[in-house]
Amino acid sequence: MVTPLWIAVDWGTTRLRVWAMGPDGPLEARSSDKGMGGLDRDQFEDALTELVGDWLPATGRLPVIACGMVGARTGWVEAEYRQTPCPPLDPQHATRPKVRDPRMDVMILPGLSQAAPPDVMRGEETQIAGFLAENPGFDGMLCLPGTHCKWVRLSGGKVIAFRTFMTGEVFSLLSRQSVLRLSMTDAQPDAASFAKAAAEALANPNLAQTGLFAIRAGSLLTQTSPEANAGRLSGLLIGAELAACRDFWQDRPTVIIGAPQLSGLYERALRDAGADARSADGGMLALSGLTAAFHELETT
Amino acid sequence: MVTPLWIAVDWGTTRLRVWAMGPDGPLEARSSDKGMGGLDRDQFEDALTELVGDWLPATGRLPVIACGMVGARTGWVEAEYRQTPCPPLDPQHATRPKVRDPRMDVMILPGLSQAAPPDVMRGEETQIAGFLAENPGFDGMLCLPGTHCKWVRLSGGKVIAFRTFMTGEVFSLLSRQSVLRLSMTDAQPDAASFAKAAAEALANPNLAQTGLFAIRAGSLLTQTSPEANAGRLSGLLIGAELAACRDFWQDRPTVIIGAPQLSGLYERALRDAGADARSADGGMLALSGLTAAFHELETT
Repeated sequence: MVTPLWIAVDWGTTRLRVWAMGPDGPLEARSSDKGMGGLDRDQFEDALTELVGDWLPATGRLPVIACGMVGARTGWVEAEYRQTPCPPLDPQHATRPKVRDPRMDVMILPGLSQAAPPDVMRGEETQIAGFLAENPGFDGMLCLPGTHCKWVRLSGGKVIAFRTFMTGEVFSLLSRQSVLRLSMTDAQPDAASFAKAAAEALANPNLAQTGLFAIRAGSLLTQTSPEANAGRLSGLLIGAELAACRDFWQDRPTVIIGAPQLSGLYERALRDAGADARSADGGMLALSGLTAAFHELETT
Repeated sequence: MVTPLWIAVDWGTTRLRVWAMGPDGPLEARSSDKGMGGLDRDQFEDALTELVGDWLPATGRLPVIACGMVGARTGWVEAEYRQTPCPPLDPQHATRPKVRDPRMDVMILPGLSQAAPPDVMRGEETQIAGFLAENPGFDGMLCLPGTHCKWVRLSGGKVIAFRTFMTGEVFSLLSRQSVLRLSMTDAQPDAASFAKAAAEALANPNLAQTGLFAIRAGSLLTQTSPEANAGRLSGLLIGAELAACRDFWQDRPTVIIGAPQLSGLYERALRDAGADARSADGGMLALSGLTAAFHELETT
């Protein structure tokens, strides 16, 4: 039977992941599809207990440290936003939801905000803390692609600035629901078409406007392949994103952390543009950040 | 009882509109929601007969001239694309679907294509012909906003070049289905927020990338209103579109033809940018173009 010291929780919009934590790291990991997006406020505690119930002690109270969209306005309880520039973590400012079970001391870590231009993050700040724990002194950019891509400027252990792009969500909507779906439904983006379109859009961001319907027209007039069309759409959108954050990556090292296929596209486009960019495995970064938060609470 | 000389048909993706035409114009108008998008190939003739059946003569054969998406690959029969530069109409190259009823001679007018950059239109060419019939000698731009916005360069009675933007479809997807829906659902765009955002995006097209999630973040951090958020999204997208076709409207008169509210937004943004732009009523342009096609067939 597992008897953890504390419990780590990464609670996003679609997934809930938990770890029973011992003094040297995770003893056991579990997950469910009870993400924040599908839960009403009064369903969070049960969704958590379902996964961690048998880890809880007969007596006493276990720290449960959570990050992610669980702290959104429509989540379990709204956790605060800490304003950048600041270090990514501050577990002292965690927010405690009301919990019926006395064996859990649930703390939801704050997100980060930026006043101008307005921006917010919830969950990524903990991944960033995990990255800094593993790479102390890093000075450069983190790029976290996904539904929304976060670009994060790190220096001196702090998040100096960040910028969120909706590129992944826009690609998903355009490729599946707009007229472009007729030219690419569910095709895997072709790498060469991607790279060519990304370079074109990086040189001329107007292509993110003029180049969209041209994909449909090209497929009607010259029978371009669904794979080439999907690659071109992805390249136009990511190229325009890179053009819009050139000031971030131009003269600094960039580490890309995300799903391997998508990270590979960003890395290819950045390298083609002469950037100092590399991909890194970020699968355990949230856990590293949650662990850093636990240690910070322990020592204060 | 109406006894037309010919029948005019404007058959788009969502609507079917027909007119019984006499020597001096329409005798009667009818419409249904049997647009091309909801019909299988073998359902087109019945959808048409449903509306025009009692207009057909006891003996003889009536010309039925149609334009629009009825001629798409997934329509009644694929009509050809004529390559620009060319005059917008050529009824001699209409395509005849197989029709069971011997009293109808159905002709679907060709669309227009452009090889580089690749582009196509179906239906707008007939509106353009209607505009030229009413404004012979016009030299300048037509802007036809809608789900897809067509910019059309006209000179010497010909379509010289055109460019299609998916701005309307992108706005619809982002405002109703992306994370931005949480900040604007179905709100009417605020005019001042629209104008400010359009001017910003026209000056810096990167805002069409960086400015999207900032709308959501702004509504979380400073409680911007749904109307302001919808106005800002519309302004960013239309401003980026105008930036991407500045070469079209910069030194030429532009006539905007579309739904009044949307046309008003384009006119505002163009005028703010110093363009020579005005809106015009285009409600009957398709009918004018179909009439021009009928006369051209009559005289040849």
